[in-house]
Amino acid sequence: MSERPSYNRGMPRKVILGFGISIDGYVARRNSAIDFLVMDKEGEVLMADLFAKIDTTVMGRKTAAVVAKNAQEWGDARHAGHGQLRNFPAMEAGQTRGIRSGEWISHNFCEKAKRRPGKDIYLGGGGELARSFLREDLVDELFLGVGPILLGDGIPAFPAKFPQRNFKLTECKS
Amino acid sequence: MSERPSYNRGMPRKVILGFGISIDGYVARRNSAIDFLVMDKEGEVLMADLFAKIDTTVMGRKTAAVVAKNAQEWGDARHAGHGQLRNFPAMEAGQTRGIRSGEWISHNFCEKAKRRPGKDIYLGGGGELARSFLREDLVDELFLGVGPILLGDGIPAFPAKFPQRNFKLTECKS
Repeated sequence: MSERPSYNRGMPRKVILGFGISIDGYVARRNSAIDFLVMDKEGEVLMADLFAKIDTTVMGRKTAAVVAKNAQEWGDARHAGHGQLRNFPAMEAGQTRGIRSGEWISHNFCEKAKRRPGKDIYLGGGGELARSFLREDLVDELFLGVGPILLGDGIPAFPAKFPQRNFKLTECKS
Repeated sequence: MSERPSYNRGMPRKVILGFGISIDGYVARRNSAIDFLVMDKEGEVLMADLFAKIDTTVMGRKTAAVVAKNAQEWGDARHAGHGQLRNFPAMEAGQTRGIRSGEWISHNFCEKAKRRPGKDIYLGGGGELARSFLREDLVDELFLGVGPILLGDGIPAFPAKFPQRNFKLTECKS
């Protein structure tokens, strides 16, 4: 009998959509800045818990660039949490490379990923990539950190035009 | 010496902006339905706490119509919380009557209201009215109930185009 790795205690890999957002639902300012998201010690613990559950990250080209930039600024207290992204597994080869906006391969990617054993999959945005996953109902869990701020404008986390998706509140922390 | 009513222990009246919203920041579906907001017992207690703090409500014409319709449906479990709006003080005379969209009197209204003693003021939306208050920095507190659902489309609670407003998290309940 073959012994397969017992990731997730035999549960299928989940796709966790995770964002830091403003109260009015922006992941970033229009200029891509995320300075409004301040990470405190408790937030870092929550992020570390998330990171421990995943082994794969998926994010669009623009989001990946922002994350890389923030990771470089490790040591800046405002980006302490994002600095941990240095420890993230790299974006899976080929998953968005060469893919033009709107031609996301969310379905194919998830089908393949779920056939392989592994920990959960972190979908870090941006909004357009999230929408393509939501359209295909591929998001199993949301992990949202809400900064206590109204930006009044910015890049939306959940741009409109996808079918209704229902969730169940599992946890809410201050 | 005159003895003035000691509302709010001498603190100025606050304007509390309160919404029930979806995760993606909609106060209602495109057809004004708010069926996605389910009120449980804990939610009712939180709403009752809010109602006890206020003596004035402000809402736009369309929102007031939706609230009145929901209040009529008292007895329907899905609208139990909204049914309590029957006990709301009426909209203050003249505050929106005859005012065309975009010509809100948020500043004048607040100036007058804050000169009078009283409990806090509940600003129940919709989004356009909220934005006019936010533009003038007249919102002192947010009271948001988030339903665990992504609608994908609807009427936004915080339509864009107002200056950044910072808040401080005071409480977060599941």
